[in-house]
Amino acid sequence: MRIVIVGGVAGGMSCAARARRLDESAEIVVLERGAHVSFANCGLPYFVGGEITEERSLLVQTPQSLRAALALDVRTGSEVTAVDISAKTVSVRTEDGTYELSYDALVLSPGASALRPPLPGLDSPRVRTLRTVEDAVALRDEVLAGARRAVVLGAGFIGIEAAEALARQGLEVSVVELAPHPLPPLETELAWLITQELGELGVEVRTGIAAASVEHGDDADVVVLADGARLAADIIVLSVGVWPDTAPFEAAGITCERGAIVVDAHGRTSAPGVWAAGDATVSVDAVTGIRRPVALAGPANRAGRLIADDILRPDDARALPHPVGTAIVRVGRLTAALTGANRAALDAAGIEYRTLHLHPNQHAGYFPGAAQVHLVVHIRTADGALLGAQAVGTEGVDKRIDVLATAIRAGLRVDDLIDLDLAYSPPYGQAKDPVNLAGMVGENVLAGTLRLWYPEDLDEARENALILDVRTPAEYATGFVPSSLNVPHTELRDRLDEVRAAAAGRAVRVMCQSGVRSAIAHRVLVQAGFDSASLSGGMLTLRAWLGARQNEVLERPGVLAHA
Amino acid sequence: MRIVIVGGVAGGMSCAARARRLDESAEIVVLERGAHVSFANCGLPYFVGGEITEERSLLVQTPQSLRAALALDVRTGSEVTAVDISAKTVSVRTEDGTYELSYDALVLSPGASALRPPLPGLDSPRVRTLRTVEDAVALRDEVLAGARRAVVLGAGFIGIEAAEALARQGLEVSVVELAPHPLPPLETELAWLITQELGELGVEVRTGIAAASVEHGDDADVVVLADGARLAADIIVLSVGVWPDTAPFEAAGITCERGAIVVDAHGRTSAPGVWAAGDATVSVDAVTGIRRPVALAGPANRAGRLIADDILRPDDARALPHPVGTAIVRVGRLTAALTGANRAALDAAGIEYRTLHLHPNQHAGYFPGAAQVHLVVHIRTADGALLGAQAVGTEGVDKRIDVLATAIRAGLRVDDLIDLDLAYSPPYGQAKDPVNLAGMVGENVLAGTLRLWYPEDLDEARENALILDVRTPAEYATGFVPSSLNVPHTELRDRLDEVRAAAAGRAVRVMCQSGVRSAIAHRVLVQAGFDSASLSGGMLTLRAWLGARQNEVLERPGVLAHA
Repeated sequence: MRIVIVGGVAGGMSCAARARRLDESAEIVVLERGAHVSFANCGLPYFVGGEITEERSLLVQTPQSLRAALALDVRTGSEVTAVDISAKTVSVRTEDGTYELSYDALVLSPGASALRPPLPGLDSPRVRTLRTVEDAVALRDEVLAGARRAVVLGAGFIGIEAAEALARQGLEVSVVELAPHPLPPLETELAWLITQELGELGVEVRTGIAAASVEHGDDADVVVLADGARLAADIIVLSVGVWPDTAPFEAAGITCERGAIVVDAHGRTSAPGVWAAGDATVSVDAVTGIRRPVALAGPANRAGRLIADDILRPDDARALPHPVGTAIVRVGRLTAALTGANRAALDAAGIEYRTLHLHPNQHAGYFPGAAQVHLVVHIRTADGALLGAQAVGTEGVDKRIDVLATAIRAGLRVDDLIDLDLAYSPPYGQAKDPVNLAGMVGENVLAGTLRLWYPEDLDEARENALILDVRTPAEYATGFVPSSLNVPHTELRDRLDEVRAAAAGRAVRVMCQSGVRSAIAHRVLVQAGFDSASLSGGMLTLRAWLGARQNEVLERPGVLAHA
Repeated sequence: MRIVIVGGVAGGMSCAARARRLDESAEIVVLERGAHVSFANCGLPYFVGGEITEERSLLVQTPQSLRAALALDVRTGSEVTAVDISAKTVSVRTEDGTYELSYDALVLSPGASALRPPLPGLDSPRVRTLRTVEDAVALRDEVLAGARRAVVLGAGFIGIEAAEALARQGLEVSVVELAPHPLPPLETELAWLITQELGELGVEVRTGIAAASVEHGDDADVVVLADGARLAADIIVLSVGVWPDTAPFEAAGITCERGAIVVDAHGRTSAPGVWAAGDATVSVDAVTGIRRPVALAGPANRAGRLIADDILRPDDARALPHPVGTAIVRVGRLTAALTGANRAALDAAGIEYRTLHLHPNQHAGYFPGAAQVHLVVHIRTADGALLGAQAVGTEGVDKRIDVLATAIRAGLRVDDLIDLDLAYSPPYGQAKDPVNLAGMVGENVLAGTLRLWYPEDLDEARENALILDVRTPAEYATGFVPSSLNVPHTELRDRLDEVRAAAAGRAVRVMCQSGVRSAIAHRVLVQAGFDSASLSGGMLTLRAWLGARQNEVLERPGVLAHA
């Protein structure tokens, strides 16, 4: 039996390795059009930034090591240009010419290429991508050769990593992003923290704007933006998205959807004996059911492995799980991570949801180094099912998102989070872990014990309600919503008459710094007969939300105008 | 309605706070016999060790702050000495005398006291416990007053934290533990890493031995061990376990089991209108069903909250979940954490299980700072249900144990771990996270694709099988099992005849450094017709297991004798 695998990274190599472990007798040929297989594609920005110093560190495996360990026939510089699905052959182009190779099973894991928008001047040699080891080495060489200014087109995960890497190397870096904020999948109120951190790193962020053209110059190129701004650049990194590399397979009659290969629950394509995995395939989102390619290493590796199972032991092969879509990125001192669906995906899928905001410490507040995890959790209104979560902070972000990703995969509801026994000791967590706290807030919301209002409701609240700020006077003085009333939560029970007079029959919208004290105050108010709601995430969330919008309520970034 | 709560830490205080949020009109009285409520009991060792510098940092709340925020009537220095369950009153002893207090609902959260074994001389003033803020302040005062030598009796979590704290302050510290290794709930092969780290910290560890007596002296006491060894000590920290503080409640006729209060699914005791939470209650282990008190903050807080629900909105109150029993401790540079059941608990419960050992890096190996997570996972033989997990390492331990604790709570099976979408980027994880890898190993074991052997089988393997070491010759030369054959896994396919000749009809027991290469080799051997098995966790696990046993195969600690 000959298994031919197209693409020697992530999905393809996982498939090859698994196939060998299952079957010593199979002939396993891996065709990779690039110069390297199984390389550390996620490590490329860190090589450019100088944290990974050796090029060979990026080469996790070589054709030689794979032959020795797993008896794989790995052929680099070998591009599959055509497939004959009835003859069961592929055409392989190498620098020495083209040959035909027959297969019993064909696994397509070609990945995706950098999307190249139809932008005048994008053919400049100063325009780079960061997809291969060669890309990374070339970029690093330019950095070492004294490049001074870089423009990164696209502020997605890789764009941000590239921007930080270049800034670390001392370049002046601008990032241009069409979406309203960097890391577009992140919710607005969390992305603001990233925007600020990029500023700390010396990266200029230009969001909500498109690049219009690239003007070639002798000394430097100029990226011209839609508003006419001109950004000189020695290096331009193109990182506005990817597109499945599936032309020869679609041409062979394999069913594709917007360029991505359609697969069934076992990774089988429309052609008999042909499977596909990774960035070039259509996935079904586990939360929303939306169909789209998911460019993540984890699901690709998993699909490759399960496809090997399906090829070699089809009766026992498990189905590919739908990806939950967990991702993480380091930005300066911060970590941003997300799992499941965000607001945009939930809105697109027509799912009704509530959002929770929390800012708990990552470990006991009395232990040195306590720092906030800024956490957003979306739950289904109907039953409290966990739909998605995001977090930003300096520490403990990855842990909470991984726990929530596990909970989403397991189908837990928000109140189940209360019951998780998470490891607690002062250096590691809290007796009520941030995840447990999210469960408690969610349960209260579902039970009606807690009613939330959101930054989006600010204008309406200012118009029609009394905004009651229950922080201390000292906190209040650092910035507050104009015309809000300040009554510290510790004095609220004794000053209810004052609140009643100020409300004058209107609803009361309570707020504090993070949403904890305002929830307590809300309970006092509700039981005293007020129409009350507590601001989700408090001033911390409100500030970030307003900051991201450059809302005019702000006197200066991060601080609200005084009344 | 008057709710009386006995005990103002963890469970008791969680109950009080939740009750107030649910009901503004209830009278809520918290009776605490100590001087402080809601103090940071888990922070006490870090105060002794000087990492937490201010005593007030340990006082998370005060009676005043709780009155202001939550209108709680918190009475410290108030010990409940009796309960009349028919009259619904408690007797409260204070320094001013005793009074009776009636209740509509009574919540018992008295906690547990340090167990005092019947040891001659234990009444010395140099014998200390570490349960209260006063204990911690007194210990720290002695440290600052120049104490030089300390003996810690008991190497459980708090004993180890205390030992490290005292060693950090420059004291000579010995720890005495009856069990064969420190942190008795940890599996032997992981505990060895802790033993070594304690050595690095300058803590002398004496295990498998009891203290026989304490001899009082003018200058110092002497702890005499069962083997006659004499350890001089300025400070003796007693930390051999705890005992529920339930005497007055048992005397009142409330059903107890070996001193711990028996509660139903809603925390109700045998007496109407009386609930109980925390260290003083019997819990049912979520994995094994074994009934025992669980002295952990998380379950206590949760129980307190759910009891408030049951008192004030009984129709909507959820049942208390059975604790999974997750715990964590920092030891020097290491973190040790565990969740679910260990071997001892599984053996006691008669559950058939398999054990997996892995040593993956916490993040991408090519990214700076990669370090191994030493992971042990127990799965049910019958169906792969996750039963327990433990890990030790310098980084990423807490995250993996929290993910596994979540998976256990959710009832996932080991192969479900493959499907978890955990956050990956080089600084945070691996495209195949350690937890995913555990799932793959477990699936292979359940499917029969991988057959494991264990350090426990070493003697039998040496006698009846060929031990085949597939590491490189350089690795092999650093220590190996006597009479084992070294064939690197990359040469195995070409040297099968050699293996066949050496095996001479015997089984082959393969091993490598961590269990990854030996699993590949196992597949080659099985398909070539050998009776083969792969050493779980490889030489890393074997060394730790032998080290913990001071096995004579060792020539020097950590390195096996050469043949």
